Amino acid sequence: MKVLGIESSGIVASVAIVEDSVLLGEYTINHKRTHSRTLMPMLDELKKNIELDLETIDAIAVAAGPGSYTGLRISSSTAKGLGMALDKPVISVPTIDALAYNLWGSSNYVCPIMDARRSQVYTGIYRFDQGSMEIVEPQKVEDINRLLSDLWDLLDDNDYGDVVFIGDAVNLHRELIVDRLEELARFAPASLNMNRAASVAALGVEYAREGKVESASAHRPYYLKLSQAERERLEEGKDILEPSDGTYRADKI
Amino acid sequence: MKVLGIESSGIVASVAIVEDSVLLGEYTINHKRTHSRTLMPMLDELKKNIELDLETIDAIAVAAGPGSYTGLRISSSTAKGLGMALDKPVISVPTIDALAYNLWGSSNYVCPIMDARRSQVYTGIYRFDQGSMEIVEPQKVEDINRLLSDLWDLLDDNDYGDVVFIGDAVNLHRELIVDRLEELARFAPASLNMNRAASVAALGVEYAREGKVESASAHRPYYLKLSQAERERLEEGKDILEPSDGTYRADKI
Repeated sequence: MKVLGIESSGIVASVAIVEDSVLLGEYTINHKRTHSRTLMPMLDELKKNIELDLETIDAIAVAAGPGSYTGLRISSSTAKGLGMALDKPVISVPTIDALAYNLWGSSNYVCPIMDARRSQVYTGIYRFDQGSMEIVEPQKVEDINRLLSDLWDLLDDNDYGDVVFIGDAVNLHRELIVDRLEELARFAPASLNMNRAASVAALGVEYAREGKVESASAHRPYYLKLSQAERERLEEGKDILEPSDGTYRADKI
Repeated sequence: MKVLGIESSGIVASVAIVEDSVLLGEYTINHKRTHSRTLMPMLDELKKNIELDLETIDAIAVAAGPGSYTGLRISSSTAKGLGMALDKPVISVPTIDALAYNLWGSSNYVCPIMDARRSQVYTGIYRFDQGSMEIVEPQKVEDINRLLSDLWDLLDDNDYGDVVFIGDAVNLHRELIVDRLEELARFAPASLNMNRAASVAALGVEYAREGKVESASAHRPYYLKLSQAERERLEEGKDILEPSDGTYRADKI
């Protein structure tokens, strides 16, 4: 099974192609949020270099949220556009799950943190058992102080080990993390600390095998928190769209 | 510290830039061994996309061997050429160490295997403790059957856990590995199973901090085994260059 991975939910733009257990290519840029200008040319470059006919892919896996509104709109629009043009399904991969998957096989808890502004982070808690990823706390938006308190309690309650932080909010909150968790906190090395389309595509292959695909036209990103415009509408007493599953998904992208 | 990573020792061509704990960009192609045509254009693409002035890098880290003769000559020549032009030092990163570093923080032994032909693999054994990589068996060339016997003994002697295989020879020997090690063998997911310049650069930063750098003109790749031409010379009773450290290094590249 050949899967194209797309990830532009945060400050990174990344594309990758995975075929079953093999990574055929990956291109990742962590430099300014100019994803609307960079993502498609990066895919075009990669495609050319591995002589990929896009018609031969089986599905498009996209980091579907949470993340920046603009970033998610760009990646989801790209996935939808390609999916509709090529008549291929889309696999929505939770952004935080894919980020945790960078540390596949870790001996510690893995806690991805991505900046969600106002002292908040997009986060979740994961661990690995016999090579498979277990979701201890599913992805959510959380105050960084609350997250660190929860982690302290979690680590205090068991002897599973320490916690490894990963993601674009690590440098922002590193001092606070060390201050609160002391020697229980560890940090992923540079080679593994950022969102990767290869992780999105590799998880996408697993999801596709479990039948977790959707049509390109049905695909929507999930934001987990309200946009500024939505918050303002609520404050004015106006309605916004809130799906019954409790996550905020775009009505259109 | 800003380090350029170059890796073309096997079937993968990969370039990456790491600045301290952050990956600024990475471009990896796993498609035919056309590294001489692809490596420099890939670096040029990456450089353009992250607006990198090469003058601002502090060092060039290169996967210096073992690996394919041609692949190593291309990456080492590129590192030497850039290093001499820019007047920057080169950091020789053992190929197998960098590959193991893909699985930083793993709860199991990590055993990279790269194809060395004739049932041989370039390999080593690693484990991680408190976030730092420990070399259990340094990189070497080994018969795959002998390696699997050694691993069986190692895993039998302690309770550190199972072993995760990684690298371009995994698919070649997967059946044999499962046959010999049964449920003790695990395999890295697609997103982590191939040589990455990001791992070379991230390890390079660590090496540079320990002062392990060399001048571009002094840099040589290490091959660990003789080339076909050298084997033939030996069989004819002629001399070849063998350095006193026991590794075979090129007299010139």
